[in-house]
Amino acid sequence: MTDTPTAYRELETRFARYAKLRDAIELLHWDMATMMPDGGAEARAGQLAVLKGLAHDMMTDPALGDFLAAAAEDRTLDPWQQANLVEMRHGWLRSNAVDKRLVEALSDANLRCEMIWREAKAKADYAMVRPALETVLGLVRERAGQMADALKLDAYDALLDGYEPGGRAADIDMVFAELAKFLPGFIDRVLEHQAKKPAPMAIEGPFDLAAQRGLCRRLMQAVGFDFKHGRLDESHHPFCGGVPDDVRLTTRYDENDFMQGIMGVLHETGHALYDQGLPAEWRHQPVGEARGMSVHESQSLMIEMQASRSREFIEYLAPLLRETFNGSGPAWDADNIHAHYIRVERSFIRVDADEVTYPAHVILRYRLERALIAGDMTLAELPAAWNDGMKELLGIVPPNDALGCLQDLHWYAGSWGYFPTYTLGAMTAAQLFRSARAAVPEIPSALGKGDFRPLMGWLRANVHAMGSRHSAREILEKATGRALYAPAFEAHLTERYLA
Amino acid sequence: MTDTPTAYRELETRFARYAKLRDAIELLHWDMATMMPDGGAEARAGQLAVLKGLAHDMMTDPALGDFLAAAAEDRTLDPWQQANLVEMRHGWLRSNAVDKRLVEALSDANLRCEMIWREAKAKADYAMVRPALETVLGLVRERAGQMADALKLDAYDALLDGYEPGGRAADIDMVFAELAKFLPGFIDRVLEHQAKKPAPMAIEGPFDLAAQRGLCRRLMQAVGFDFKHGRLDESHHPFCGGVPDDVRLTTRYDENDFMQGIMGVLHETGHALYDQGLPAEWRHQPVGEARGMSVHESQSLMIEMQASRSREFIEYLAPLLRETFNGSGPAWDADNIHAHYIRVERSFIRVDADEVTYPAHVILRYRLERALIAGDMTLAELPAAWNDGMKELLGIVPPNDALGCLQDLHWYAGSWGYFPTYTLGAMTAAQLFRSARAAVPEIPSALGKGDFRPLMGWLRANVHAMGSRHSAREILEKATGRALYAPAFEAHLTERYLA
Repeated sequence: MTDTPTAYRELETRFARYAKLRDAIELLHWDMATMMPDGGAEARAGQLAVLKGLAHDMMTDPALGDFLAAAAEDRTLDPWQQANLVEMRHGWLRSNAVDKRLVEALSDANLRCEMIWREAKAKADYAMVRPALETVLGLVRERAGQMADALKLDAYDALLDGYEPGGRAADIDMVFAELAKFLPGFIDRVLEHQAKKPAPMAIEGPFDLAAQRGLCRRLMQAVGFDFKHGRLDESHHPFCGGVPDDVRLTTRYDENDFMQGIMGVLHETGHALYDQGLPAEWRHQPVGEARGMSVHESQSLMIEMQASRSREFIEYLAPLLRETFNGSGPAWDADNIHAHYIRVERSFIRVDADEVTYPAHVILRYRLERALIAGDMTLAELPAAWNDGMKELLGIVPPNDALGCLQDLHWYAGSWGYFPTYTLGAMTAAQLFRSARAAVPEIPSALGKGDFRPLMGWLRANVHAMGSRHSAREILEKATGRALYAPAFEAHLTERYLA
Repeated sequence: MTDTPTAYRELETRFARYAKLRDAIELLHWDMATMMPDGGAEARAGQLAVLKGLAHDMMTDPALGDFLAAAAEDRTLDPWQQANLVEMRHGWLRSNAVDKRLVEALSDANLRCEMIWREAKAKADYAMVRPALETVLGLVRERAGQMADALKLDAYDALLDGYEPGGRAADIDMVFAELAKFLPGFIDRVLEHQAKKPAPMAIEGPFDLAAQRGLCRRLMQAVGFDFKHGRLDESHHPFCGGVPDDVRLTTRYDENDFMQGIMGVLHETGHALYDQGLPAEWRHQPVGEARGMSVHESQSLMIEMQASRSREFIEYLAPLLRETFNGSGPAWDADNIHAHYIRVERSFIRVDADEVTYPAHVILRYRLERALIAGDMTLAELPAAWNDGMKELLGIVPPNDALGCLQDLHWYAGSWGYFPTYTLGAMTAAQLFRSARAAVPEIPSALGKGDFRPLMGWLRANVHAMGSRHSAREILEKATGRALYAPAFEAHLTERYLA
């Protein structure tokens, strides 16, 4: 008897090829951000358009629908295979919702807009990049419309679903409403509480860049980053790229401030550890992939916010900082370092914001992108609407657009519907950390010795090794006993900032 | 009236997509050699196999044959378009000669063998890599057989043709026989002549690596390398990769010797300038590509051997070296630097060989790979045959295989039929340089001021801008008035080494 390949096996083969092609695209993007000379942009845009077109061809091969239909009748699949099939179908539906011409046009428009944005941001010149952004938004709305029709969602949910499978704006509205109710008064109380204490002592630079680089590598190793399967480089906008077996993490250094750089690296390392911990036996299959952006962000914020800004970890970090930068005096004590790291301030730049004010930045972007996608607002109105929103939510107005609507790459590179996942991730991280500490009481004391293994062991088992076997909601329920629950985040903020 | 796309236009579209896909593959290879952590090798092999499979699919689409047949009847094509069509047909024939399973198996085997080779070379352990090399050679011979059938060539010519379109072993046999007749006696005379002069004064290191890097960039700029369209990085085995608009040049530095590193960079810069000078209006079309490896190597050897080791250029270089490395004393004089750079020695390593003994290294490899492809020799016999050949051609025997048959990447990475192009390139360079100097008499004096523009102007017009519009033979005939002519190379060697 011959072993006839089943429809399901054929799907695994095809999805593995698709995943490897997308991995190649991922590497070309990393290179573009870290290595590519400016003059290579046009050629790279051409390469990416071709590869994305080929990926689209794979997913729109009519035979795929037949295999999916046949595999749905297969009663021999185990639960992982069934979950894999669900993810395959979801990806296939999304890919077939959008026509190929639009996929290629969008890829091209995003890359061109990103290049112009780099210069426009440096010059604080929104008008310079607006035409390119109009093109991007027009194509994104077209794409959202096609996807919405196919998936029976509204346009914004169709975009959101690309980053947060199963995510819905209606749910986010509820969570954000709860947060928006809690935060303004809380920020006032925190600032009042903070004002009663002396300001942290300044730590004067410059700080040698080579020393910063070396320290970042050392901390990445402490967290558990495997340098045999990854690198650390520099880019304009830090990110975690690459593939699980070859993670490409990037950061940027500032000679006058090491503090943000270190936390930035720890943040991206959280992303990287999630990727490196995905189930290797399901590599290149949809069920082996990370479970959407809110879970991904929960892993970076777990390392950055929950673990690395904890009082315990700062006890370990402070002497290391003193040694690395030849520091002396009480400014280098753990008390003072910790005071810097939990300093709250109303400020303009999202990526530099503290965790208390950060959700306000996200809520602003979420409101604006919903309005822009719905067509309730134009890009000509964006800078003013941004500034109005900042005034309302944080009480401050950016003096120029580089500190306002030009600050983030996302929209300019075609990523719409992504922003809310940051704050969903922060809330998820707080809830997971609470359960991890309950299950593994030695986590805080281990962090005090720079030892992330107890925390990582719990995360590996409860989050990383799950891949996309369950929904984000199910992962959270299995790990913590309940769905996303804002009071866990609020309790975390209250403990840390009003203690 | 609508403008119906012709078969020729359809071919241009398809070949442009194919070229962009291959450009992406090229970048993934560069990354593998320069950036990728070891643990990424398996994933990268998978990505490359998929992309190469897709490229093979494009070239084996049955519709392509129909378009080529239809375009052959098109009487409206101009000479560049006609030449483009010839190149398209040649590439199509080669791609369709080999089945896809073999293409993917070879890609995989090459990558695995290359990884093992890195370790085997470090350990001088040929036995360690031989099984992987057996796999590569078996697949290469299978590929050569399929190609030979389709192209009506013998197996070795079918491989050679992939690097040197139109090249034939019978022609190389003649040229190499002429050289093999000239060289042994000439090497004796040169060594005798050299022995009468005092040995060059030693230049003691170490030489700061950052200073070496800076100097290399400065020299690349002098030659005309455009850093807006390229980079310089480090890799185990120096090469010139990337694409014309984004050239990725690599080198390796030795803290105890800057001299080889600098010439290595100048060599690769010659390759890079050819790529950057290819006709931009034919970008991504076969006729816009470089005209095979002997012409490519002639451009690197033009810069390294003809221009940069000339007495005139060394007059410019010597004070720059003294300044860069804070040198003092007569060892840093141009006379002494030049004596180092034209030093002849019987040695083991091809890439470190001088231009007089270099052809002997190539003739050895050419003989061995012809025997291995023909099945007249086994890989078990390779180390001994290598050593016998070294004894015969150069009178020396390597003490281990790291200095022998493990030294070059080529065979281990699946590049068979490539080696003879090095010496064809050296001969082509000598012949071109002679004509360039006759046409532009100020070339030598400009080189004496570090000014490559007169030489580059001639090369741009006579070689680079030609792309693949003509055959290698025609390019040489148009530029120099005759086909490849060994006495031009012999005259160059005689002038430089017996003066």
